[in-house]
This record gives sequence, C-alpha cells and structure tokens, in this order.
Amino acid sequence: MVNKIEQIIEENRHMYIKWLTDFCEIPSVAAQKRGMTEAVDYLDSLFERALETTPEKLETDGFPVVFAELPGKSDKILSFYNHYDVQPEDPVELWKTPAFQPDIREGKIFARGVADNKGNLIARVAALHAIKQAGEELPVAIKFIFEGEEEIGSLHLPAFARKYADKIRADGNVWEFGYRDADGALQVSLGVKGMLYVELSAQGASSDLHSAQAAIIESPAWKLIWALNSLKGQDEKVLIPGFYDDITPISELDQEMLKHYRFDEEETLNKLALDNFLLDLEGSELKEKHIFEPTCNICGIHSGYAGEGTKTVLPSQAKAKVDFRLVPGQDPDKILKQLRQHLDDQGFTDIGIQVTSAERAARTSPDAAIVEAMLNVVEKHSSTKPNIVPNTPGTGPMYDLCQALGIPSASFGVGNFESNTHAPNENINIEDYIDGIKMAAALVFEFGEKINSKGARYSDSIN
Amino acid sequence: MVNKIEQIIEENRHMYIKWLTDFCEIPSVAAQKRGMTEAVDYLDSLFERALETTPEKLETDGFPVVFAELPGKSDKILSFYNHYDVQPEDPVELWKTPAFQPDIREGKIFARGVADNKGNLIARVAALHAIKQAGEELPVAIKFIFEGEEEIGSLHLPAFARKYADKIRADGNVWEFGYRDADGALQVSLGVKGMLYVELSAQGASSDLHSAQAAIIESPAWKLIWALNSLKGQDEKVLIPGFYDDITPISELDQEMLKHYRFDEEETLNKLALDNFLLDLEGSELKEKHIFEPTCNICGIHSGYAGEGTKTVLPSQAKAKVDFRLVPGQDPDKILKQLRQHLDDQGFTDIGIQVTSAERAARTSPDAAIVEAMLNVVEKHSSTKPNIVPNTPGTGPMYDLCQALGIPSASFGVGNFESNTHAPNENINIEDYIDGIKMAAALVFEFGEKINSKGARYSDSIN
Repeated sequence: MVNKIEQIIEENRHMYIKWLTDFCEIPSVAAQKRGMTEAVDYLDSLFERALETTPEKLETDGFPVVFAELPGKSDKILSFYNHYDVQPEDPVELWKTPAFQPDIREGKIFARGVADNKGNLIARVAALHAIKQAGEELPVAIKFIFEGEEEIGSLHLPAFARKYADKIRADGNVWEFGYRDADGALQVSLGVKGMLYVELSAQGASSDLHSAQAAIIESPAWKLIWALNSLKGQDEKVLIPGFYDDITPISELDQEMLKHYRFDEEETLNKLALDNFLLDLEGSELKEKHIFEPTCNICGIHSGYAGEGTKTVLPSQAKAKVDFRLVPGQDPDKILKQLRQHLDDQGFTDIGIQVTSAERAARTSPDAAIVEAMLNVVEKHSSTKPNIVPNTPGTGPMYDLCQALGIPSASFGVGNFESNTHAPNENINIEDYIDGIKMAAALVFEFGEKINSKGARYSDSIN
Repeated sequence: MVNKIEQIIEENRHMYIKWLTDFCEIPSVAAQKRGMTEAVDYLDSLFERALETTPEKLETDGFPVVFAELPGKSDKILSFYNHYDVQPEDPVELWKTPAFQPDIREGKIFARGVADNKGNLIARVAALHAIKQAGEELPVAIKFIFEGEEEIGSLHLPAFARKYADKIRADGNVWEFGYRDADGALQVSLGVKGMLYVELSAQGASSDLHSAQAAIIESPAWKLIWALNSLKGQDEKVLIPGFYDDITPISELDQEMLKHYRFDEEETLNKLALDNFLLDLEGSELKEKHIFEPTCNICGIHSGYAGEGTKTVLPSQAKAKVDFRLVPGQDPDKILKQLRQHLDDQGFTDIGIQVTSAERAARTSPDAAIVEAMLNVVEKHSSTKPNIVPNTPGTGPMYDLCQALGIPSASFGVGNFESNTHAPNENINIEDYIDGIKMAAALVFEFGEKINSKGARYSDSIN
C-alpha cells in the first residue's frame, strides 16, 4: 500500500514541485501585509484540485486560519499545523536570484519560505493527494490548520485556539518544520521555545538635528544603547531581575535526550564562517545552552544615517527590535512586566515598549503516539537514525494550539542543514521534498496504527 | 556707493533668487557622489554670466575645488570659503516638498543645501556681481574657494591647502555659514570645532541567521552596543583614556566672550519640542558645554531588520557612525589612536574602525581686521546687536585652510534660527538672503578700509 502511494508520488513529482514553486511566487509577508489574500486563494484552489474540498477561512483579529478536514476510518484525528506566511526577504541584495521567483538549481529550490514553511505545507497536502489517488481510505481523520501570522508571532492564535478548541481537537499533531543535519539525519522535535518580541524606542527632538547640537541635546540613540546595555552583560547573562526565576529545571529525561541529541559543531562553524561558538562553548554545555536556555537577541537596531559616507546628524529617534526566546516555565507576560520594571529602575522610564509577540514554550513527551509513529517512519525512510531534539530552539504557537488542549505534537520536515531559513537564499533539496511527501503519507498510516490500538487521547503532553 | 549697490541688488533680487534655486535643484550630495559635476558646471556658467570670469577647477584626490580670483585696488586679499556639496536628504518622507525641488512659500526658500551653504555661496557671488554692475573698483582682491567635500569631512582639503598655500593666501577670510538667532540677531563666529568621524563595525556569521541561533552564535549587534557603551557614560563623559588631556584651557577672553554670547534657551527648547537640555544644563554651564566642550555623538547605528512588524533574525553585521566634535588642542589623529587602544583594552579588538573625517578646531582673535569689519557691517545693517560666537559648535576645515596659513577667518551668513540644516525642510528667509548679499558687498569695502589702513597680514589668528 505504501509502495503504491510512493509510486504515485514519484509519478507526480513534477506537479508537486510546481504546486510548491507556484505557492512560493506569492510574497505572503505578514509583517508587511503583502500577498496574504493571494496565498489564501491559492490554498483554496489547491485544496479543490488536490483533495476536492474547500477549506474554511476561520477569521481571527489578524489574517484568517485556513482549515480543512478529511474524514477517516476511526474517530481518531491527526492534525497538521503549518503557516502560509513567510519572513520578509531583506537583505534583498544578498539573494542570488529574487526571493519570490523560485529558482531550481543544483537539485535545490531557492525561494523565500520554501523551507519555512511552504515546502512542508505543500508536502503534506501532496501526501494526502497521493493517498487519495491510491484509492486508500484514511485510517484517521485529518485536519489541516494553516495560520497566516506565524512569522509575526501568532499574536491572534491563542484567542483562535480557545474559540475553536473543539474544532481543532486531535489525538496527535504534526508541527510545521523539520531539518536534516549535515550527515543527513532527520531531526524530530518534541517542543519549541517561547518568545517575547518587543520593539524598544527612544524619542529625542522633534526632528533630526545637525550633530553639533549633540553637545547640549539629548540623543535617543545613546539612550537606547545604554538601555540595551543594561539588559544583557558580555557574559550573555540577562540582567532583568527575575528573568530566570520560573524556568522549569531540566529533568533527568531531558538530560538523557540531550546526551543523545547530535549537534555537529564543526560543520556548523564551517557553514557560518566562524571560529567558535558563543563564549567558546562546546559539547554538552553548548547543546544545553542551545536547547534549554533562553536568549535575549537584537533582531534590529536603527537610528540616524545609514547611507554611504558621512552625515553629521543627531537622530531624533532610535528603535530596537529585541526577541527573548523563552524556555518552559517562563511566562512572556510576566517577563514583559519585569522588563518594564527593570528599565524604569535603571532610569529609562521614557524608553517605549511595544509587544509584537508573546508565546510560551511547549513540550511533548517522547512516549506520545505521534512521537513514536514519527520516529518509526523516519527510521524506515532513512539510512541515518533520527536525531531527537528535545526542544527546538525555534518558536511557534505550539503551547496554545496543542499543549494547552492536551494534544501531543512533534515535528519533522523537508529542510536541510543549509536551508537558510529567515536569511537570503533560503532553499530545500528537491529529494528531501519528495521524501517529505512520502514520509507524511506514511505517517498517516503509522499514526493510525498506533493510535487506533492505543486509544489514548488528551493525555500525552507534558504540562 | 553702498546705496547704489544695494539698489542694484534690489533690482536684481528675482535673478539672484533664481541663481540660488537653480543651484539647489542640483543634488550635489558628495557622500553619494550625486550631481557633483553638474554643480561644478553650474558654477562655471554662473561665474561667466555674473563676473565674466572662468573659475579654475583645482584637482584634489576627491572632488575639485572651484577657485576664482578678482583683481583689486590694493595688494590685500579677501577670500570667501564655501562648499558646493550638501548633506543627503534623508529622511525623505519628512520633507513637505521634495528636497531638490526648491519651494518658495511663506517668504522662505525650502531646499536641501539652501542654508548650508548654497545660499551663502550664491549671495557672495551675487554681491560681487552687484559691485561690478555698479562700476565700482574692488578695494582688495577677492578669492573664491569653493570645495566639494565639506559635508563628508573635507578629507582632501589639508593636502590641497598645503599644495596651494600661495594661491589661497589672503589677509582675511569669510567662512561659509551664519545664522540669525530667534530675536533676529546675526551670529558672527570666530572659530569652528574639529572632528573625528568614524564608522565602527562588527561582523558575525557569514549571513543573517534565524534568531533561534542567538543562544549559541555571537551577535555583532550586541558586541557593537557593548563597545559603544564603553565610549561614553550616561553622565556624558567620554570614557576614552586621554580624550580630554590636550584641550586648551578656556582663556579669560573666551570667558568674557562667552558671557556676552546670547543663547535663547526657551526658544530653542520650544523649537525642538523638548523640556530640557542635556543633563538639565542651563545658563553659562550650558553655553560653555555647547561652545567649548567636545562631543561623542552617534550619527547612525544600523543592524538587522528595520521593516514593519517582526523579523526574528540574528544579524550578521552591525555598524555605527560616530562623530567626535573636537575643541582647540585636541588632535583627531591622536584621538583615533586612543579610541583604538581603548576598544582593544576593553576586549573589542575585532570592532573595525574606518575614518571618514579628521579635522582640528580653529579660532580667530576678535581683534583681526576681518572680525572688526564684519561686526561693523552687521551693526550697520541690523537693528539687533551681532551675537558673537567665540567658537561655533559646528565643524569645517578652517584650521587647514586658514589658521595653519595665518589667515584670520570669521563667519556670517543667510541662515536663520529654524533653518533645519542637515535636517528635513531646510530653509532660509528670502529677506535674509537679500540682506546677506548686501552685507557681503558692504564687507568687501569695510574690510578694504580696515586692512588697507592697518597693513596687517598673516598675524591675527590665534595659534
């Protein structure tokens, strides 16, 4: 049966690649409100063609969630979570081919969003198309939940998840992303970090001034630099009082998983043209920091003149975008309060804070049916053992969409070690994409077998 | 005689305004190498039309210096220093009318460069045109020295001044700029601050990364922020060892001039929509800081995502443009060495420094003929007493072009209290411009009278 489906996937490979490149031509950058309706319309027409069903457009206070359901043999449900929005394409000048003109070269597809996460989204639709073409009945019902605001922090997804709790109910969820290591091993992720994303701003005079005025007029650029400097020391410790207080201690099981988690330091450094990791960390300390520690990162800082040569100006405003990646136990709302208090205490009462994302971390237990099924599929389809990531360093709305509703969630996908997500020349390997379709199809049956025999529901997530 | 010249100036006011607006249409932004040849060509044709002479284009390693000489009755020489380059026009969106489409409204001309300093440049050419039209012989020879790199730090002017020391010889110089206070008083400036302008840069991985990597990959944005933070404390004291060591102490004469120097605190704060000056300074402390203290200002800092909404990225590089305004005694080359040493000592050995400007401060004694002549002209033409600025907080190559050659230099011009130099909506009042032409013409004769009787040369500058 699986062989028949794989044969259909091979026969349709050109069509499936076209589905993806057509989708990647749409510049669905939520941050800039570009191409979002077009992306929803594209999914509409794809679902009609591929699965003979019209997805629902569930409204939120932001962009709608595209939702579709396919009936199955049992009352058990497998859901797929993906997003149809992508990151902005800048810095544009570093792309070898335009970000929204997908280019196929050297066995890869290059385009903004192809790895994160249109490749995964389309692979999963294609998998269900192939199953349908094979005339196979689905062992479980399938739900597709495609949001449009993942790259801007899924700000409206918690309210959505509460409102549609029953509609998105499932016995297992496949999360959006996944990557291969340099050695080809597929990562299987059992959680995500949370996030608090803020824009800090300082205001000076009513307009930019001749920089001779800097002798007597306050500089918002300096104020912002001093405020940022107060947030994190050169030892990378976040200096906001209380920041680390609520972190869930690393369990023995976590330590065990961390020990088995494989991270190729040399390949990573080579790829990034770096000599060493942060603070010269290596081995288990490096892995622990990557997987289990929160961050305080500057996504952007901008003030004054950015052009060529000199401009002698005292800027009138300064802004910084800062993301804190949070780990289990940390509450973004509480950390926001701590940040405000800290800035006030340091004398930066006039630094403004605007929140654009607040998400908690989420975790799934390794003995959930979806995890076991996913690991089985990967082992069958790959010559290399899967690399289990206890908690991926990335972020998504897994807490609200899954953990809070008791739905175990795990993640794998079509990305690779050099996919350049959120960066210029984002790409996936065509063969990884085709394999991803095959594995998504196989997972439907593998999960069906596990869950129909197990009968477990709403029970396997770690709270 | 002066009345006759003033009458000619009034008769020609529309033509003189057109000379200026035509010149302001040329986007001669040296930093971006735009419109520079066009600006030189324009001056060529203007000198032909106005003064029946072709200026020389004296080559430098950058943009050429436009030089012209008009013979006079005596062997004494008055020179005018101006520049034909302007600041970049950004932030473009804050201009009410396009920066390079001069707009006349409410009795003002709005355009990039109209105050700094095309208005002054054209006013001085117009003054000589009017004298010529009046059939008057010049009491002294006149030299025009118009450079094209003032707004990018006059990097090639020191070499130019050494090479052409004899050619640019003069007994008095009129410097480029000048402004009216809020009460209408004309400022007469007797010096400029120096400058060290540097671009600091930090490099991270070979490309921007997903910000989840911030847990283990060094951030150039953080590094630059920490390095900048080490340069200046929140008390505004520059923390580079040795920075203040060589400053020439403020003399009794300086203190006396500072006492008479008028600075309208309330008007300035109102204009800038601010509640207070830096460190809540006021009165003589504020004036002293403005006139006699060096600065360390951030003209620009840029790293990572600047667009709308969120982008979760670990930037691969960070850059800051920093200008230090220097006071008499400070040597920009020495301060550059101290800066490098300081960054190295603080562990920032991999922060790059690129110098784009290095100029010393310059001062002229108040009893130089050019100063006395200028003050006389201003008193005769204005109902308000001139406001003598012992040392303007701005910068220019006065040290190399004048002080090093023993040429006393002073400055007045056509700008106003709200001219918005280096900022959006730069402007001058049309009547100030016409007055500026009249005063430039009057100065030629006033200076002639002083210098021809005095016979002083190469002696009146403070070294």
